[in-house]
Amino acid sequence: MSKVQPRTLSGFMELLPGPQQQMEQIMSILRETYSLYGFTPLDTPVIESSEVLLAKAGGETEKQIYRFTKGDSDLSLRFDLTVPLAKYVALHYADLSFPFRRYQIGKVYRGERAQRGRFREFYQADIDIIGDGKLDVANEAEIPAIISQTFTRLGLRRFQIRVNNRKILNGFYAMLGLSEQSGDIMRTVDKLDKIGAEKVGALLVEDLGLTREQADEILAFIAIKGGNQAVLTALEGYRGRSEVFDQGLDELKTVVKYLAAFGVAEEQFAVDLTIARGLDYYTGTVYETTMLDHPEIGSICSGGRYDNLAEYYTDKILPGVGISIGLTRLFYVLNEQGMLNPEMNTAPADVLILPMTEDLSDAIALATKLRQAGVRTQLYTEQKKFKQKMTYADRIGVPYVVFLGEEEVANRVVACKDMVSGEQTKLDFSATLDRIQQGLAARRAGAPIREG
Amino acid sequence: MSKVQPRTLSGFMELLPGPQQQMEQIMSILRETYSLYGFTPLDTPVIESSEVLLAKAGGETEKQIYRFTKGDSDLSLRFDLTVPLAKYVALHYADLSFPFRRYQIGKVYRGERAQRGRFREFYQADIDIIGDGKLDVANEAEIPAIISQTFTRLGLRRFQIRVNNRKILNGFYAMLGLSEQSGDIMRTVDKLDKIGAEKVGALLVEDLGLTREQADEILAFIAIKGGNQAVLTALEGYRGRSEVFDQGLDELKTVVKYLAAFGVAEEQFAVDLTIARGLDYYTGTVYETTMLDHPEIGSICSGGRYDNLAEYYTDKILPGVGISIGLTRLFYVLNEQGMLNPEMNTAPADVLILPMTEDLSDAIALATKLRQAGVRTQLYTEQKKFKQKMTYADRIGVPYVVFLGEEEVANRVVACKDMVSGEQTKLDFSATLDRIQQGLAARRAGAPIREG
Repeated sequence: MSKVQPRTLSGFMELLPGPQQQMEQIMSILRETYSLYGFTPLDTPVIESSEVLLAKAGGETEKQIYRFTKGDSDLSLRFDLTVPLAKYVALHYADLSFPFRRYQIGKVYRGERAQRGRFREFYQADIDIIGDGKLDVANEAEIPAIISQTFTRLGLRRFQIRVNNRKILNGFYAMLGLSEQSGDIMRTVDKLDKIGAEKVGALLVEDLGLTREQADEILAFIAIKGGNQAVLTALEGYRGRSEVFDQGLDELKTVVKYLAAFGVAEEQFAVDLTIARGLDYYTGTVYETTMLDHPEIGSICSGGRYDNLAEYYTDKILPGVGISIGLTRLFYVLNEQGMLNPEMNTAPADVLILPMTEDLSDAIALATKLRQAGVRTQLYTEQKKFKQKMTYADRIGVPYVVFLGEEEVANRVVACKDMVSGEQTKLDFSATLDRIQQGLAARRAGAPIREG
Repeated sequence: MSKVQPRTLSGFMELLPGPQQQMEQIMSILRETYSLYGFTPLDTPVIESSEVLLAKAGGETEKQIYRFTKGDSDLSLRFDLTVPLAKYVALHYADLSFPFRRYQIGKVYRGERAQRGRFREFYQADIDIIGDGKLDVANEAEIPAIISQTFTRLGLRRFQIRVNNRKILNGFYAMLGLSEQSGDIMRTVDKLDKIGAEKVGALLVEDLGLTREQADEILAFIAIKGGNQAVLTALEGYRGRSEVFDQGLDELKTVVKYLAAFGVAEEQFAVDLTIARGLDYYTGTVYETTMLDHPEIGSICSGGRYDNLAEYYTDKILPGVGISIGLTRLFYVLNEQGMLNPEMNTAPADVLILPMTEDLSDAIALATKLRQAGVRTQLYTEQKKFKQKMTYADRIGVPYVVFLGEEEVANRVVACKDMVSGEQTKLDFSATLDRIQQGLAARRAGAPIREG
């Protein structure tokens, strides 16, 4: 038979069993942590009607869409989890209770140019809190608390959640009479890290036609740095010149105040006036999260407050706040940086039973007992030489191998080898189970991410 | 702004939060149970190159495929999890260890005619064991053990796994010199339940040109019924007439023998000579699983032994055995039949905190403590009337509501209402936590499925 060359499409992540186990451990922690904060899981279709999915889209996004027809239907694959959420909330409004808190971990599709670390199919892990008409600012403080807890549980310590408030930026530009140019200005200011303050100031004057005074005010504003209280104090100096600014500052102060009660460590959280996020969508608090030792990776978790989630589908005003983790890219980066903890158990089983008798009944009964005790157990039933069986055990990385021969069956004992220490015991079932469960508990104490 | 009517495509399941929680509980039990038997999770792309995905497909399947082009690429959405597994194993052969045991729970796509209970996007939950060259028959006994354990953990009791062996069927038809007509014969025999033995016999003679003796032999064979031992004994009467038949009978006896050691109850398992499954693919043991009180639903979990998983991609001979649960359809049916246990906790949180103070710091600190203790906690921060807050608590179905006012803060107590019993307590944090955790543990003892 002529063969088709098996391959996986470029830009589509397909993991080997070991790394896949690590990915599952990460997803499991995300699900647990999001649930702990009262978010309910959602699962929406990967395919939507193009008319619905592209109600808002345009420009770059639209070009990347996987769009096709099937019969008479014009269909598209979702490119994020926010538009499907907007549709869901508008469609099921009468059946939902607000505030509506949902998480969704799902694949999304963007036909980007393939390059290292860029994916066309990738997981996003989103949480959002949607209000009906109103949504209290306290929710904007809870979101970074969840981010902090999530990354801490994953094993990350050296990260920082950077927070700003769009009302502060909008109010500041309004003070200077530059509201209409704020988009251009923010794009220029974004080059600060690359070209320095002096050149940014020159560009503001020469390219955008600002006065020298306006440019200097902007440079002074974005130069506000320091601890959170120091930044807030500096911002107080601008109070009274713009209602929007004052409201943003009040919101930011509330967010900072409540974060301590939420258990977020001071050093994991920084007010940063250079964070802006997209220009149209976010209207209040905005977030970015960076790994302190890997700033080159950019934000690993971003989001913010928006005023009207589903305006393309409904007249209901549905403000919300949410964040998104680009999970596939994060996993790729962690792996590249060697930050996935190699000590986590990534074997398909905790115990591999090697039966040494022709009749498998005793080995099967032993496997059944181990499974009833919650131990992930694989029974090796193939007719192979002992050495080949041990090579298999090594290759799958199983922590314990159990041997069951005529002698063990007759003496009602179990021979068990710890594949890490090499130590071998011959004990009764209950003592063997104790030993295995203690060893597994010690392994489970670890986290999927390990820093430097 | 003109609105787009929000809608979800026909044939695509999109659940409300409560049912989605039930679906998640079912998926979580599947993941746990599959893991307990030493299967490793896989996650392959939803999109594959059409050339790869359709290497084998043809006929009905190919018509249902979601196939489209993006740039120069001819792409298709996967229509099952078996073809992607074949590709995966062929592609990553050198990095895998055999037997390779994997589970995958993922969405697949088939553009079927939309009708009630038929889905175009649906979850399959598959397990497979793949050997390299050979695979011991003991694996064919383990598969029904896993099915049995999975459904038992889901809460189902009244189910039966029906098992046959394709070699027995093939050997039997070979005895009669009818190997080449076996496909047509099996399709005619399939009508037995509908039209009765007499008419099946007539069709075999008149339409297929069998002799009366051949037809009678076939009717006698498929009439073999009774307990598993009785059926095996009856089958012994055919031994010695076909090598293939004898091999199939030996395999079936081994499967039956090992099932007891695997802990499968006698009544959950039946040898049934009318089970055939697809004609080309399966070569040994085949399985179907029916709900005893709902035979009209058909098989809820099917599969079998195959001899060459990846023949379209590689010269390696990769025999295997696997089963698949059509999860979306199963969930739909369970819901229609009222078999989803309404006593399971489907609320987004275990505790809803209603702060009665303007400053939220104490309420936030309380939420943080509850979450640290593993209690899923939602903080209600909106400015609403008390009655509206309690209506919200009722609607989301949260088991406990905690009130925190100035008095409670001053006295270091927590007011907590059990939303089912209506009982309200005012105790310190630790006593409140104990009460909540005991109540939650009792709720968690249930299973997602509840029978009549």
